[in-house]
Amino acid sequence: MQDPNRVIRIAVDAMGGDFAPEYPVLASAEAARENSNIEVIIVGMEKRIREILEKNSIDLPNIRIVNANEFITMEDLPSEVYKTKPDSSLNVALRMQRNKEAEALVSTSNTGAVLLHSTLKLGRISGIGRATISAMIPSQTGSTLLLDVGATVDCRPAHLFEYAIMGSIYSRDILKIDKPRVGLLSVGEEKVKGNEVTLEAFEMLEKAPINFIGNVEGRDITRGSVDVVVCDGFTGNIILKFAESVLDLLKARLIQYSETGFTKKIWAGMISKTLKKILKTFDYQEHGGAPLLGLNGVSVIGHGASTPYAIKKMIFRAEDMIRNDINGKIAEALKKIK
Amino acid sequence: MQDPNRVIRIAVDAMGGDFAPEYPVLASAEAARENSNIEVIIVGMEKRIREILEKNSIDLPNIRIVNANEFITMEDLPSEVYKTKPDSSLNVALRMQRNKEAEALVSTSNTGAVLLHSTLKLGRISGIGRATISAMIPSQTGSTLLLDVGATVDCRPAHLFEYAIMGSIYSRDILKIDKPRVGLLSVGEEKVKGNEVTLEAFEMLEKAPINFIGNVEGRDITRGSVDVVVCDGFTGNIILKFAESVLDLLKARLIQYSETGFTKKIWAGMISKTLKKILKTFDYQEHGGAPLLGLNGVSVIGHGASTPYAIKKMIFRAEDMIRNDINGKIAEALKKIK
Repeated sequence: MQDPNRVIRIAVDAMGGDFAPEYPVLASAEAARENSNIEVIIVGMEKRIREILEKNSIDLPNIRIVNANEFITMEDLPSEVYKTKPDSSLNVALRMQRNKEAEALVSTSNTGAVLLHSTLKLGRISGIGRATISAMIPSQTGSTLLLDVGATVDCRPAHLFEYAIMGSIYSRDILKIDKPRVGLLSVGEEKVKGNEVTLEAFEMLEKAPINFIGNVEGRDITRGSVDVVVCDGFTGNIILKFAESVLDLLKARLIQYSETGFTKKIWAGMISKTLKKILKTFDYQEHGGAPLLGLNGVSVIGHGASTPYAIKKMIFRAEDMIRNDINGKIAEALKKIK
Repeated sequence: MQDPNRVIRIAVDAMGGDFAPEYPVLASAEAARENSNIEVIIVGMEKRIREILEKNSIDLPNIRIVNANEFITMEDLPSEVYKTKPDSSLNVALRMQRNKEAEALVSTSNTGAVLLHSTLKLGRISGIGRATISAMIPSQTGSTLLLDVGATVDCRPAHLFEYAIMGSIYSRDILKIDKPRVGLLSVGEEKVKGNEVTLEAFEMLEKAPINFIGNVEGRDITRGSVDVVVCDGFTGNIILKFAESVLDLLKARLIQYSETGFTKKIWAGMISKTLKKILKTFDYQEHGGAPLLGLNGVSVIGHGASTPYAIKKMIFRAEDMIRNDINGKIAEALKKIK
């Protein structure tokens, strides 16, 4: 049993995201202030990080700065920069994790780069063929965990099987859902419906030690009738981005409507406010980022536009994953199966 | 050049859908009443069809009834009923089309059955490897045509290529979009992003005689930045069903909100009404069903829950496809390419 109060060290990549280094630094400070059981290691250009801390009069004992002279941009090709930018903030942060100087990474940098660097630096849990990125999609009763949302575009049935095991453990121990219902995303509920990969995955999942409820369809993701939805990274990525665009669509339509008259303008504004409240779970900022699962370590990825609030939630999510020993549980589950 | 006023004969499968035969019959009558340039052939159990017509005092010269003693249910396995129910309303209607006694089919029956029966009875256009089902998804500027949404779950690159050609012609001549922008659904805009199938399809589409704008992402479907989005039937089906569920999600959230107080109840009701108006294009009833493209004939499929209004729109869509000779144009385009 772990000491529930032991200090967890989390490395935050200060140089990734649309508002770097300001937002990651402010988020780090906020997290460190709220939670003295973590130490936040801010990795990036030390001078700029210090400026932000000073400007905001932040001086906390559980914040540490580690310098990194390079950083990765959204345009960088992941496989290239791994070699050309060995001292990127991302790489330095991951190196610390490999050297046991930190236990987790939080980054709002280039998703592909975080995925590739994390996989190369940390390696995968024994028995896992592919790491996966998961995401939360709003549902009628809360949210649904969807994975994979883009780590692996061409999946084999065994990968879907692993996603199901990992998603089930994450849902149970981090999202606190009792006996999470795991569904395989397909084009019909019947066992015979699906593509070549899902048909084979279905056979494997029937025997898995999880609460597998069979095939689910596109509409089930938002229905609240399933907790974990498993799919290949191609389909998952497209759904995630489609889901993210729905709020923009609503907003655009409300604006069009408001342009048809003055009263409608006021009315549209009022509706918009209520909708925002009602659709809070549509907001990825609430969800603590997208954890990578299957790695020998912890990496939590966030949207490039993440606010300090969203990044703070990611830091706490990383802490949560360590305290609950998610990786240990995944490794154990896989050992039992094989 | 066709005579623009010649009478088009359209066979309506009266026995398919949740409210058959009532809704298909009422829709047929409404269409025949509004448009004297079509003859609607209602196919199904004659006695029941006559009862509905009499009960509603419908007596129109351009309605004809053709008896069919069997019908297909939503539970029927398409490949089985093709043999066991040779005299289903669906099969009788398609046989008429093959025998040139009708030019189109409209059905709200079991989608898989309509697809299989249509393909077997009508055959494919020369040069087409797979027929496709298309659907309209709401966007910020109107709607986006998405195909394939479920006809073929395991697509080859050549199938995606064909979908692009067919979608482009349909969008131009039926949806009246000038030089429709055709996008390939993928996980990133760059040419190198995609799965094995889309990467190869991209190469083919670059040389296609259409306005190919490259890869598009999940979020682009609703953005209004692309007119035709091409994908495999597995991904497309999941997106379509996911999109259909978004309105239910909004509704459910509004109901939850309304339960928190009396004023909120009234407020939620008012919002709901406005949303309905704003999101009219979310309503599949408006879209004239989902045409099958690539067949040597015309089949328009509708949702099982389609209202008479929706089915009427499907009948007019079928008429439109014939008057615009969509199939002739597809065949011609393919001949030019090969």
